[in-house]
Amino acid sequence: MPAEQSLLVAVLGRGPLPRPVPVATADDLGLTRGDGVFESIRVVTAANGTSTAQQIDEHLARLSRSVAGIGGPTPDTTAWQRLIEEIMGAWRFPGEAVLKLMITGGPGVLPGAPLGIATISRTPESWIDARDGIDVTLLSRGYRSDSFAEAPWLLGGVKTLSSAVNMAAEREAAARGVDDVIFTSLDGYLLEAPTSGLVVCDAGALVTTPTGATGILGSITVDIALSGADEDGVETSSRLLRPEELESVDGAWLLDSTTGVAPILTVDGSPVRQDPGMTGRLRHWAGFQQ
Amino acid sequence: MPAEQSLLVAVLGRGPLPRPVPVATADDLGLTRGDGVFESIRVVTAANGTSTAQQIDEHLARLSRSVAGIGGPTPDTTAWQRLIEEIMGAWRFPGEAVLKLMITGGPGVLPGAPLGIATISRTPESWIDARDGIDVTLLSRGYRSDSFAEAPWLLGGVKTLSSAVNMAAEREAAARGVDDVIFTSLDGYLLEAPTSGLVVCDAGALVTTPTGATGILGSITVDIALSGADEDGVETSSRLLRPEELESVDGAWLLDSTTGVAPILTVDGSPVRQDPGMTGRLRHWAGFQQ
Repeated sequence: MPAEQSLLVAVLGRGPLPRPVPVATADDLGLTRGDGVFESIRVVTAANGTSTAQQIDEHLARLSRSVAGIGGPTPDTTAWQRLIEEIMGAWRFPGEAVLKLMITGGPGVLPGAPLGIATISRTPESWIDARDGIDVTLLSRGYRSDSFAEAPWLLGGVKTLSSAVNMAAEREAAARGVDDVIFTSLDGYLLEAPTSGLVVCDAGALVTTPTGATGILGSITVDIALSGADEDGVETSSRLLRPEELESVDGAWLLDSTTGVAPILTVDGSPVRQDPGMTGRLRHWAGFQQ
Repeated sequence: MPAEQSLLVAVLGRGPLPRPVPVATADDLGLTRGDGVFESIRVVTAANGTSTAQQIDEHLARLSRSVAGIGGPTPDTTAWQRLIEEIMGAWRFPGEAVLKLMITGGPGVLPGAPLGIATISRTPESWIDARDGIDVTLLSRGYRSDSFAEAPWLLGGVKTLSSAVNMAAEREAAARGVDDVIFTSLDGYLLEAPTSGLVVCDAGALVTTPTGATGILGSITVDIALSGADEDGVETSSRLLRPEELESVDGAWLLDSTTGVAPILTVDGSPVRQDPGMTGRLRHWAGFQQ
């Protein structure tokens, strides 16, 4: 089977499955209520079939924080690490792939434990293409930039399976003939993209948007890239940005674990200034050096 | 097996399954992204084991509208009706049960069609108990009452599988020692409960909260109850309500397809006036006459 049509599935407590048979029961709360959390991790497989996963520890730590956010039991990190090793050992297609980890609330009717799933599949071509640059549109997320303050039930910063709005926003982007979305708040700020974080370069300094009251997910890739920038003496900060600032910045990018660094070419048709040098440096800091 | 531990599962295109084996693949978008929609329908099973489902047509119509909201292919209503008949024929436990219909986006990696699932399980005891009255807490939903205007990607009024926030809000209610939640908007209005609609009686008239720009799901049970009230000459309307109005109304209720009519006893500890006569009439109009 060609890599493009291939999906490896492993289940916590069972190990890798010989075939990608169904794994979630009809009453699993991850399915019936989107009550579960996940991580998407970049896997790079060498020509000899050996795979390496990027920032496993950071992703497992965020997975644990997300589980805590939905009130689930603390994941067994050692068991997850073993499962990840097993499924990565079984993946032999050279190139880039996505390792996805999911933990659901488990069965909602019949008694049962939370369901832990790991999958690997080839990184979609469109995600790779995004590295050449993307056109984005701004869409309201319906929240204020402080909607999540003192409202933990809104699950700000929790990477839940409940991302139907993200999917719908991506479909809206496609309908508008662009590649991706930057969500905006009711009070007129840029937030994040459905599956990535926002970084701009403003007067030589790198700026990302703040987590916390905004509900923005803490991006592992943004954190790593800005830490690298810090170490190399580039000023970094986190603050709310207005859409009109995109007209004057020296560059803007969406960052995530699998695409890496996608330079934003246009926002609703208006060109954004390009900084190929900084794109290269961000890739280097984020571990996406070609 | 006692009814309490029983779950019947049927899959569109396959029919009822002999056992509740897993049905969703690890790449199903309903699982991985909460990208799917559902309905919960009340089933009443007589002593002889014959089951009747309530408002099947209304639920199938809303299911179709929800699917359209997430850009999915129009469901085959005839096939669903047949599946529902089959699974209801296999359910033999006298009393009340919940028939759940789900349609997911289907596999996200391997090629495949949307997944259609029907399940039946016993109505949880706590849902039945809610008919005796509930204590509720107000929780912010993070949106303004007009957040959903001209923003279809926010999926207002679409009954998606992505309800992790609803689950988290119900957990917050339990942590506060109450039974349920009424969500509020940033601009200070009452919206809806995580799984039910709000109705109050104000100066003899029944009022519910408006769908549309609020993102509130159109409640089949509220619609049916208020239609019945209309026919019986009780004035009904839909408008935004403020929390402080709950101090002066003659009664307030949460309505949904499975619990029916739950009188609200207290809101964040403050008692709400009771109108047992109107509770009985609402039950009658909603088809929940004991």
